Amino acid sequence: MTREIAYELAKKQREISVAEFFERNKHILGFGNPTRAIVTAVKEAVDNSLDACEDARILPDIVVEIRKGERENELMMIVEDNGPGIVEKHIPPIFGKLLYGSRFHSIRQSRGQQGIGISAVVLYGQLSTGKHARILSKIGPDRPAYLFEIGIDTHRNSPEIIRKEIINWDKEHGTRIEIYLVGDYSRGRKYLYEYLQNTSIVNPHARIEFIEPNGERHIFDRVTDELPKPTVELKKPHPHGIEMGTLLKMLKETKTKKLLNFLKNEFVSMGERTSRAVCEKANLDPEMNPKELTREQAMRLLNAFKEVKIMAPPTDCLSPIGELLIKRSLKHETKEISPEFIVATTRSPSVYSGHPFQVEAGIVYGGKLDRESPVKILRFANRVPLLYQQGDCVTTIALSNIDWRRYGLEQRGGKGIPVGPAIFFIHVASTHVPFTSESKEAIADIPEIENEVKLALRECARKMQQHISKKEKRKKTKEKFLLITKILPEIARKSASMLNKPVPNIDNVVTKIMDVVWIDDHIEYEKVKRVQKSLDDFSGKEEHGCITKNRITIVNYKRKPLKFDLYAVIPSEAIVGFVNPKPVKITDKYIKWSLPMIQPTEKFEVYFELAGLKEGDFDENELYVEGIKPEYVIGANKWEGE
Amino acid sequence: MTREIAYELAKKQREISVAEFFERNKHILGFGNPTRAIVTAVKEAVDNSLDACEDARILPDIVVEIRKGERENELMMIVEDNGPGIVEKHIPPIFGKLLYGSRFHSIRQSRGQQGIGISAVVLYGQLSTGKHARILSKIGPDRPAYLFEIGIDTHRNSPEIIRKEIINWDKEHGTRIEIYLVGDYSRGRKYLYEYLQNTSIVNPHARIEFIEPNGERHIFDRVTDELPKPTVELKKPHPHGIEMGTLLKMLKETKTKKLLNFLKNEFVSMGERTSRAVCEKANLDPEMNPKELTREQAMRLLNAFKEVKIMAPPTDCLSPIGELLIKRSLKHETKEISPEFIVATTRSPSVYSGHPFQVEAGIVYGGKLDRESPVKILRFANRVPLLYQQGDCVTTIALSNIDWRRYGLEQRGGKGIPVGPAIFFIHVASTHVPFTSESKEAIADIPEIENEVKLALRECARKMQQHISKKEKRKKTKEKFLLITKILPEIARKSASMLNKPVPNIDNVVTKIMDVVWIDDHIEYEKVKRVQKSLDDFSGKEEHGCITKNRITIVNYKRKPLKFDLYAVIPSEAIVGFVNPKPVKITDKYIKWSLPMIQPTEKFEVYFELAGLKEGDFDENELYVEGIKPEYVIGANKWEGE
Repeated sequence: MTREIAYELAKKQREISVAEFFERNKHILGFGNPTRAIVTAVKEAVDNSLDACEDARILPDIVVEIRKGERENELMMIVEDNGPGIVEKHIPPIFGKLLYGSRFHSIRQSRGQQGIGISAVVLYGQLSTGKHARILSKIGPDRPAYLFEIGIDTHRNSPEIIRKEIINWDKEHGTRIEIYLVGDYSRGRKYLYEYLQNTSIVNPHARIEFIEPNGERHIFDRVTDELPKPTVELKKPHPHGIEMGTLLKMLKETKTKKLLNFLKNEFVSMGERTSRAVCEKANLDPEMNPKELTREQAMRLLNAFKEVKIMAPPTDCLSPIGELLIKRSLKHETKEISPEFIVATTRSPSVYSGHPFQVEAGIVYGGKLDRESPVKILRFANRVPLLYQQGDCVTTIALSNIDWRRYGLEQRGGKGIPVGPAIFFIHVASTHVPFTSESKEAIADIPEIENEVKLALRECARKMQQHISKKEKRKKTKEKFLLITKILPEIARKSASMLNKPVPNIDNVVTKIMDVVWIDDHIEYEKVKRVQKSLDDFSGKEEHGCITKNRITIVNYKRKPLKFDLYAVIPSEAIVGFVNPKPVKITDKYIKWSLPMIQPTEKFEVYFELAGLKEGDFDENELYVEGIKPEYVIGANKWEGE
Repeated sequence: MTREIAYELAKKQREISVAEFFERNKHILGFGNPTRAIVTAVKEAVDNSLDACEDARILPDIVVEIRKGERENELMMIVEDNGPGIVEKHIPPIFGKLLYGSRFHSIRQSRGQQGIGISAVVLYGQLSTGKHARILSKIGPDRPAYLFEIGIDTHRNSPEIIRKEIINWDKEHGTRIEIYLVGDYSRGRKYLYEYLQNTSIVNPHARIEFIEPNGERHIFDRVTDELPKPTVELKKPHPHGIEMGTLLKMLKETKTKKLLNFLKNEFVSMGERTSRAVCEKANLDPEMNPKELTREQAMRLLNAFKEVKIMAPPTDCLSPIGELLIKRSLKHETKEISPEFIVATTRSPSVYSGHPFQVEAGIVYGGKLDRESPVKILRFANRVPLLYQQGDCVTTIALSNIDWRRYGLEQRGGKGIPVGPAIFFIHVASTHVPFTSESKEAIADIPEIENEVKLALRECARKMQQHISKKEKRKKTKEKFLLITKILPEIARKSASMLNKPVPNIDNVVTKIMDVVWIDDHIEYEKVKRVQKSLDDFSGKEEHGCITKNRITIVNYKRKPLKFDLYAVIPSEAIVGFVNPKPVKITDKYIKWSLPMIQPTEKFEVYFELAGLKEGDFDENELYVEGIKPEYVIGANKWEGE
């Protein structure tokens, strides 16, 4: 009886083509509903354009246009770029075959990684409208432009070329995609706009033009002519977190004859010394043939990777945005809110399962932000904004697992998304971002990544809290300060003149009431003509740089003379100019002064200039003190070391 | 220049095998971290066993065993079932090839659908430990048992048969899987246990034995010998929500010669009349050749599908759990909490994108549940518990978009997961559950499904609220009631005896104070021996049934005589036995009485018996009244129709 059933069931067993699979499961690709479909489609196309331009070191000029189609909810999406173009024979598989691409096997940071994105848009367009995609591409001024009309044979997961033509295109090089699809523009518009805006935040070198169905044009212009630093492809994995199965496969397939060379040649960050240390820890002969390792020996090797200190992977495969640029973009985007405080941080690179990654975070606090709503979270992966599936993204999970009550935000039970006037920015850059699904909207909850996100957020949170407590402390002392610096001397003068006596020395009274060291800072910007770097660089444009002038005032309102050290933290991009008095130390992170003895009620001034920043990049000094009880000081915190 | 770059980029273009893709993206399959990995692995194996047993109409006996492996965090998972077994030649592709399976192309409710699950476990096991999977299967008592050792060649996505042997297995039929994998048992145990427990809730016909690494055994025994009703495979899609691309493909590939027959033969729920109505609405000749439809005509057809009323799809492709079983399971699982109230509902089937689906919901309220925490959500899809990715599941989204403050729960801003002493149960059954990823942990936010989930939850919520308000009303009236029924008569008697006068009639006073109709109900269960259905059914066990006895007391504490109708809602599974007085109507949903005129302070009793239920299935009457102002009544609500 069961036997017949087994045969009955067996008859139905079949291979499933990956295109059929995704045709049935279009929601996995981000096409689950018409609102989201239009955003996903544009996102896949724009990500590809940005990647291609970055590879070709071209400043991207991208036009995104949405037109109404012939029936309700049918739209035509057009995305045109000035990228390097696509070689003729690769056009059909790139657009008409799922799991085909150039970035899957290379270890470097890029937006596309899966070889699914754009062919998924073609698949969805075909499924929802029955129409084919039109692709136009040209790889150089002296080359023809190819126009393709492409469909997907889902049973075989292969491109169907409906039309192929050589046409005249007056563009030098680039690619233009036209795809019909079912989408809800009226609902999707808001998200689409948000996607383009956030894309422009983290890709300040791109110019994106957006044309709506009613003809309205929006331009997200580039704010810099500098392309992001090119990422270098890693040829081999990092040994941290490598899987046993992968190691066994590598051992089996290696061409090296000695274990030592296997380690040195097939992994990054493994020099002679580290490789020898690993062999020793694993109690293995460095001279042995890697192919002859037993499973048990391989296991020892894997454990030794964890126990021996191995350098972090080279960072040039990653392209973080940088603290300054994050702050600048956040400032630009929150102008109307006039926030009190913006902070950002870029962590050092780390590794999960052999993949290097790097986390950046930022917090915008205060101003007109709503105090009664959950904080807003801006998520990015490899410079691509993530708009959906916030709940299950490692960034949200990490954020929810921090007790924000400690940092001055409201949070029920110390878990979950906090409530308060803040925007959180989180960017994860990696040679392989572990997305939870092919729609690439959420990052999987990998413990190593969660940990780094937490560290980055806590770093920002501490600064936010310092800011809040500094503000509160200042506010409390403000009344006293007013009394002392304005009213008391006035009273002394008035009473002295009335009594015809000399103005008394009220220093004693002042220090008695204040009993603090008051540190205040004032920042000014001076525009300067940018120094021309070389003759080639002369573009005829008159560009302006900026000198940031910092004046720090220290007044000793304690009743005894005091002497201590002062630290001013500076952005790593800044170039330190004139400094007075002479500091004892300047690093790329801070300037340190050993202040002279300051007498009660005496005022001391520290001045320094920074170049290489834009106006407003540096708008609040982060000050620390050492050699004095921090509770004596208003306006600076305790120096905890770097 | 760009030309060379285009060629440079082109050189890297490559096809990616689906196995390579998932090897790199194991988190998409639910193997992102070792805690979750062990739960996912067991889940995939157990789901397959349950599906196979259901297909073969076998009561499942499943053993899940976890053993420690040879290195840290290495585990061996063993899952053995008494299912129909797998035909020899299909064993390698089922376990060693991704996207291979029997359920992808069939339109019916089943746990597995993608052809990815179990081969993904083999892939992850191989990746994390380098070891192969062992499969043992036998399809009948007179057949050999085959033992396979299988790996996956990820470059080609094809099975590698390492070993194949015929061995002796004293089991009549079944399958046993042994897979080594890296997993964190100490952290994963809790989730694994929860998965098995919840699986047993929604599969009461299954017996699952769980053996921990320390040898501890847990048995989740079956609570019924009845298999779920077999699901019938639909051979064709429902016209609602069908995609334009799919329709065009069907028109192109059809063998019918007339549009009318095309509609009648290639869709479900399309009879002669509906098909003609669709043709008419689309202004198309029913006699025309379907292959000759233009795109514009196909579009009209698609629109007509929306405008003509088409019957819901047949429900026998779906297998909901049912209100009673949900309530029973929830009651069983929340025993220690002693909740005040449990309610459940099963919605009628509906359709999204041509796929039938059905939503069920339940709420457990009160008792020892924490009043200060967010409500707990139990999510299920096709009788499989969903443990992860709660945040982005349509069930959570629907729940978060209901204003629960209206139903007596706390909720910030009327959005998000409410806070209060409640557990929510949601089950989505479909011929194709739209999971957000291959790990099948969250259901995509499809508008049609969100809507049905909301309707189901609101239905439960209304009943919950009726319960809460009934309770509050009763509580308020309780004091009066005590005064009237106990103290007042006592006072009257006492004073009368003291004054040597006859006991006065206090009815007038009573009705003046109470001024309501008081309805109270009392339920008792009487065990009875179950009636033997047939001779074959005699199993030697002595089984017990139960008669549920309901006594409803109505007292008129108004100052005038009243006459109205009373409705008692009954579970659809119940069989109505003795009823007194004679009702005016009995349906499968309720019993209706036209009560006689009841005089002030007069008491009237209604009695009825229900068979076919277990003790406790029916523990609170849901009563409605008609023909009387509902605000006069305590203990019943206004009848709103069915």
